[in-house]
Amino acid sequence: MAYLTVNVEYGLHCLLWLVDAGDRPRSGRDLAEFQGISSSLIIKIFGKLTKAGIVRASEGLSGGYVLAHAPEQISLLQVLDAIEGRKPLFPCQEIRGRCAIFEGQPPSWATGGVCSIHAAMLKAEKAMRDTLADCSLADIGRSVTRKAPTDFAGEVSDWFDSRLSVRGRRSEDKHDKQGTIV
Amino acid sequence: MAYLTVNVEYGLHCLLWLVDAGDRPRSGRDLAEFQGISSSLIIKIFGKLTKAGIVRASEGLSGGYVLAHAPEQISLLQVLDAIEGRKPLFPCQEIRGRCAIFEGQPPSWATGGVCSIHAAMLKAEKAMRDTLADCSLADIGRSVTRKAPTDFAGEVSDWFDSRLSVRGRRSEDKHDKQGTIV
Repeated sequence: MAYLTVNVEYGLHCLLWLVDAGDRPRSGRDLAEFQGISSSLIIKIFGKLTKAGIVRASEGLSGGYVLAHAPEQISLLQVLDAIEGRKPLFPCQEIRGRCAIFEGQPPSWATGGVCSIHAAMLKAEKAMRDTLADCSLADIGRSVTRKAPTDFAGEVSDWFDSRLSVRGRRSEDKHDKQGTIV
Repeated sequence: MAYLTVNVEYGLHCLLWLVDAGDRPRSGRDLAEFQGISSSLIIKIFGKLTKAGIVRASEGLSGGYVLAHAPEQISLLQVLDAIEGRKPLFPCQEIRGRCAIFEGQPPSWATGGVCSIHAAMLKAEKAMRDTLADCSLADIGRSVTRKAPTDFAGEVSDWFDSRLSVRGRRSEDKHDKQGTIV
């Protein structure tokens, strides 16, 4: 078990395939198939990313998702918060005020300001969030590009284009058949 | 919902009451009552802290828990890992290898080294863990001491001593009664 769910990994990997796609939408189903993961889960995750304004969704045969901002402006932290929700690291219940010798009436020195334990946890949480805020989709994309052979980006584009083209042909066939029936 | 459970807050607050206790054990039941939380939960949490070597447990009428090390040597990170288990921030499933165009045989450039997304998450996790490793029980204890009135530590000691004394008297009564019966 980890603190984050696999949805963050799924969402981030699929977002990476939008980095070089520019304004050409890629569908949730294609992203899921390309990445080898569940289509229904990706649609759920991308619903959250759309709601958070990280991607823009469009309907139709050639519809799908595009990044709503330049990949340099989308941080891992934004993606994490969009998918997992903005959860605190530490669930402070202010139990410092429950100390028996206060007899239900904790003095102000005991409950004023932030609890020292909570403050330490907030500092650790900030260190984690600052690191994720400093890393963008563009950073990750560049790192993948550095590793990949030069023709990889082209192969990726071709794969998504071929899916779109197959959908286009199927749609034409459907219209032809409807025409025949009618 | 938060990433950590309330057990971390409960455990840390109760550990703080051992900082000034030195070699005098404080029982799980007393710690729980003093802190206003469930006794069974504290016993469970302190079982984990004992297993992790953060506290030492002793049996008997005046038994209980003492810190196994100087409070300067017990970090919040150690306590967190003991209570929550050593969980990673990010559950990397290496889905980078599942890319459709690899057709089930990902090339070495795609799966070699640490995944760029995972590497960014590990960096964030390290920032969080380093911050918690830099904060000790002694640091938190000093912070509480600075806020509290000068007689607070004495009141805390008196409370735990009085509990011990009540248990001692009950035990004597029990022996007297047993003597009468016999």
